[in-house]
Amino acid sequence: MSTKNVAVIGLGSMGYGIAQSALRGGHKVWGRDVVAATTAKFIAEGGEATVPDYADTDVAVLVVLNASQTEDVLFGKNGIAAHMRKGAIIIACATVPPEFARAMEARAQALDLHYLDAPISGGAVKAANGALSVMASGSAEAFVGAQDVMESIAETVFELGSQAGVGSAMKAVNQMLAGVHIAAMAEAVTFGITQGVSPASFIDVISKCAGTSWMLENRAPHIAEGDYTPRSSVNIWPKDLGIVLDIADQANFDAPITKTALAQYAKAVDAGLGLEDDAAVAKVYAAQAGLNLPKGKHS
Amino acid sequence: MSTKNVAVIGLGSMGYGIAQSALRGGHKVWGRDVVAATTAKFIAEGGEATVPDYADTDVAVLVVLNASQTEDVLFGKNGIAAHMRKGAIIIACATVPPEFARAMEARAQALDLHYLDAPISGGAVKAANGALSVMASGSAEAFVGAQDVMESIAETVFELGSQAGVGSAMKAVNQMLAGVHIAAMAEAVTFGITQGVSPASFIDVISKCAGTSWMLENRAPHIAEGDYTPRSSVNIWPKDLGIVLDIADQANFDAPITKTALAQYAKAVDAGLGLEDDAAVAKVYAAQAGLNLPKGKHS
Repeated sequence: MSTKNVAVIGLGSMGYGIAQSALRGGHKVWGRDVVAATTAKFIAEGGEATVPDYADTDVAVLVVLNASQTEDVLFGKNGIAAHMRKGAIIIACATVPPEFARAMEARAQALDLHYLDAPISGGAVKAANGALSVMASGSAEAFVGAQDVMESIAETVFELGSQAGVGSAMKAVNQMLAGVHIAAMAEAVTFGITQGVSPASFIDVISKCAGTSWMLENRAPHIAEGDYTPRSSVNIWPKDLGIVLDIADQANFDAPITKTALAQYAKAVDAGLGLEDDAAVAKVYAAQAGLNLPKGKHS
Repeated sequence: MSTKNVAVIGLGSMGYGIAQSALRGGHKVWGRDVVAATTAKFIAEGGEATVPDYADTDVAVLVVLNASQTEDVLFGKNGIAAHMRKGAIIIACATVPPEFARAMEARAQALDLHYLDAPISGGAVKAANGALSVMASGSAEAFVGAQDVMESIAETVFELGSQAGVGSAMKAVNQMLAGVHIAAMAEAVTFGITQGVSPASFIDVISKCAGTSWMLENRAPHIAEGDYTPRSSVNIWPKDLGIVLDIADQANFDAPITKTALAQYAKAVDAGLGLEDDAAVAKVYAAQAGLNLPKGKHS
């Protein structure tokens, strides 16, 4: 592995962990966030303190919120793409429409930059541990150029194709299921309460039966413990399922279960739960049915 | 373990495997089905050939379709309960409303019979291998009396409480999730096709990501292989999700995701897919969006 000059743009819960993992991997890392205190914290942990020189950056990792932020970072008023050297690599991690990813790739390639469509999965803990799953597609050059950084930040890189868009499509499929499964878990755990099944008993039994899911095993304990500290917030889902449904609409694809799950998250946001852990969608069901959820330190 | 005289009523895909497992466990097993050829097949495999003498039966395992068949077998015109000896055990495996299970328990106890509310999970292969999960509730006497048979047929027995009903409640929760997860998998796999993600690629990636579920890993291969040989049929789900929603309605609990999934299965039945494997709910999505699913030997 060779040491790269890496810029990580966006130091949210995922980006901060990615920047830490790249640093631990031996790279020189410039971490930048719109929140100055977050940038300063990363510099104090070993990040480069100088202003990033994008002409000298080998790999830019974009861990921003959505398509519009991705476009702004690359091609906006202070966009970095115009300053990057030929042959440099852009790793774009936000969940975006596949069509948008293909458009970004084309604009990057027009500047002789390599673009890896690389949405990530795994959550903040895996990001911090360099153990993310990455759903990646792009040119062979983009994969080769990204490899040293990927080895630092990812446990699994799915190589899904030679053009941007396929990675984003797979991420959309994953988010559709993840969002539906959290809401379905919330529906089932609260339904169980109406029948005398406690959330703790629900977890004990269902996690060993055919009704289990990765999200159920990960999120149902938050409900049983009454702990809605946001590991991943309710607000993620109107955004991500909205992207999924936009893509589906463009393909004339009807996704009624996803639509129904989105409506439950929208109710959660309306109820002021947007910044709580996404398991708080259970509170929508509990409120409708007049149920009490377990209380915990943060509920 | 002591050898018991066991009657298994209902030799469908689950009951047949349970009867085989009980036989392999060293019990004397009378297997009976409304289809005479199925009964004959089981006798040829080592089942008892004589007419069952319910006065001499230690344990009756009911693996019928629903509440009404359960009631009919026990208390109908030719009902067995009136003929069973005091202290004998009824193991009731159908998915039924918790309230119905409590009513059956009361009627059984009035005849000095022990009633185990014991819905099963795991599918036909696990039934045949004596490796089912059982969600059981009932009196201590019912658990003790059922133990030798349970050891033959189950890998895991969840002991959920001392009264009938809790087992059925947990089963309803499990079926809610299992039914939603199959339909969600079908929605996601077909959505993926619209974005260039093949079902095979979907399985490779999503089964290792946060979007996975037990049902996804079990059923998505049927779609990728185009094999709709019914391991468990579409027809199960209007029945089981109907039971779930009836129970929910009685508790004034709104279950919108379950309702939406049920509507997809209802469309599958309307399209003539009721007897196909439940993964065939994907064909509803494919038909709506004009997609081609993989073809296989049986599709």
